[in-house]
Amino acid sequence: MRGIVLERGRVLVRDDLAPPQPREGWSRVRVLRAGLCATDQALARGYMGFAGVPGHEFCGIALDGPHAGRRVVGEINAACGTCSTCRAGDGRHCPQRTVLGIARLGGAFAEQLALPHQNLHAVPDSVSTDAATFVEPLAAALHLADDLDVRSFRSAVVAGDGKLGLLCAWALHLHGVPVTVAGRHADREPLLPPGTVHVTGMLEEDLAAARSFDLAVDATGSSEALPRLLRHVRPRGTVVLKTTTERPVTLDLAPLVVDELRLVGSRCGPFGPALAALAAGTVPVERLVAARYPLAGANEAFAHACRRGTLKVLLDVSLG
Amino acid sequence: MRGIVLERGRVLVRDDLAPPQPREGWSRVRVLRAGLCATDQALARGYMGFAGVPGHEFCGIALDGPHAGRRVVGEINAACGTCSTCRAGDGRHCPQRTVLGIARLGGAFAEQLALPHQNLHAVPDSVSTDAATFVEPLAAALHLADDLDVRSFRSAVVAGDGKLGLLCAWALHLHGVPVTVAGRHADREPLLPPGTVHVTGMLEEDLAAARSFDLAVDATGSSEALPRLLRHVRPRGTVVLKTTTERPVTLDLAPLVVDELRLVGSRCGPFGPALAALAAGTVPVERLVAARYPLAGANEAFAHACRRGTLKVLLDVSLG
Repeated sequence: MRGIVLERGRVLVRDDLAPPQPREGWSRVRVLRAGLCATDQALARGYMGFAGVPGHEFCGIALDGPHAGRRVVGEINAACGTCSTCRAGDGRHCPQRTVLGIARLGGAFAEQLALPHQNLHAVPDSVSTDAATFVEPLAAALHLADDLDVRSFRSAVVAGDGKLGLLCAWALHLHGVPVTVAGRHADREPLLPPGTVHVTGMLEEDLAAARSFDLAVDATGSSEALPRLLRHVRPRGTVVLKTTTERPVTLDLAPLVVDELRLVGSRCGPFGPALAALAAGTVPVERLVAARYPLAGANEAFAHACRRGTLKVLLDVSLG
Repeated sequence: MRGIVLERGRVLVRDDLAPPQPREGWSRVRVLRAGLCATDQALARGYMGFAGVPGHEFCGIALDGPHAGRRVVGEINAACGTCSTCRAGDGRHCPQRTVLGIARLGGAFAEQLALPHQNLHAVPDSVSTDAATFVEPLAAALHLADDLDVRSFRSAVVAGDGKLGLLCAWALHLHGVPVTVAGRHADREPLLPPGTVHVTGMLEEDLAAARSFDLAVDATGSSEALPRLLRHVRPRGTVVLKTTTERPVTLDLAPLVVDELRLVGSRCGPFGPALAALAAGTVPVERLVAARYPLAGANEAFAHACRRGTLKVLLDVSLG
């Protein structure tokens, strides 16, 4: 089958990949659409020593299993199901897990992929294939609230007005939290939830109300935002890290102790709430699509995604 | 009055200090005993540009106010009482607060100090003056559990077997959490709560069960422990920072995101539970006393406290 392979910093289009084999408890999926994420760009640069087929945001058609013939999306962590973490119901953190397009499991930038049956969710007819491709990042954004008493927050700042930053702003908006988004792109206002404050300078200069936010979310993917964000939350406030950075961060942790802040890492979320939000039409994700490319145009797709200010680049696998 | 002043990295004994003046809503206290804390040692090295009378752990006799004539201990944050943080009931984080012996409020290493009436707590007769001097650090240790569902934790590791590390181990023990203490002092076992596991090598080598702790507490005061501790908690585990460090920390934050850890800063705690624990005799704090000095011996006291492995050095102010 055709697919994209990352190999030593190169993006290769290959036509000789072996499709996934039938496997007990797993479904094979014909990929229709896949989304290019900042993590894919980092993997292409060699992050985590990745080699293989990337891609973890997708919508496709199940070829077999309980959803055979239906459009599906899939949660990306394939857990072992038997270790103590899995038995405690936390398969997303199974230490033996493989992760679609990220860790030891071929990803969605190919004609076919495979995932355990229980990872797949049928896509309601009212949700377009483009929109369904956003279920994974929207689920990650919604998840930022899962372990926080988010409805108690009277104010939040999201650092980053890229794809994930916008989705985090929508996630907080859906939870009723007034949001300020601090980013670099003046043209993002039409994409923000109603009522959102958008600032586009340096955080320090633009956020007059220093140390006032109940919650700050770092969705920048940069190691520079966190030290600033720690200065913008109130004492006993919460900072959620939604993005990993490739480089270590040097931090003065005294304010974290003195102000008793909480710094919380947040990764993937459950798909149910994200699918429900898309079915209800509450998050206009299709407006985030910047371009679409066939698998054959993978190099152009990666180059486009890397251009400053680019929102979501899709791979339209059905185009070949 | 006599008191100790820190000034440009020097510890000075002065006999010409002005005692605190009577002030509406504040009590004056004649200091009996004061404890030397790692923060005092850092202030003496110039941390936070401190100049003035240090000392925030004490037991004394109230000279006026509601507790006049009684032995008292005092919470160290003097809040303004009128700002929005204070009105929300969180005076410990009042941005205008002064802090006894730490920020713009003369401390306990002097014959007299002053604090707002409501900061003072009468000491039960069953608690010795030495033991009462430990209320402040014990309250800080107990506070580590205040915003955590600590009874859900099946295991905890405390990094650091100094004064605060030992008190944190006792705090967790009182909450029913099995504790491992990782430190550098093989002679600490008699001071630990019953059932505590004590390891004294490098964390990595000694803690065979890597990534298994529900909770880790950094009480080392060093910037080196945290990166290691992040590797010793389970996914979705909690790391509490109890000590500040003078130097910034360089951290790879990817594990925090991927494993969805939470890093929580924790500072002072309310005195009530600590006084109750001392009154019940459940924490043998007097065994932590390493030495006592008069105010006139302040330089020797600071030098002694800085010696590797020293537990609590007390200033016996009643000795002059």
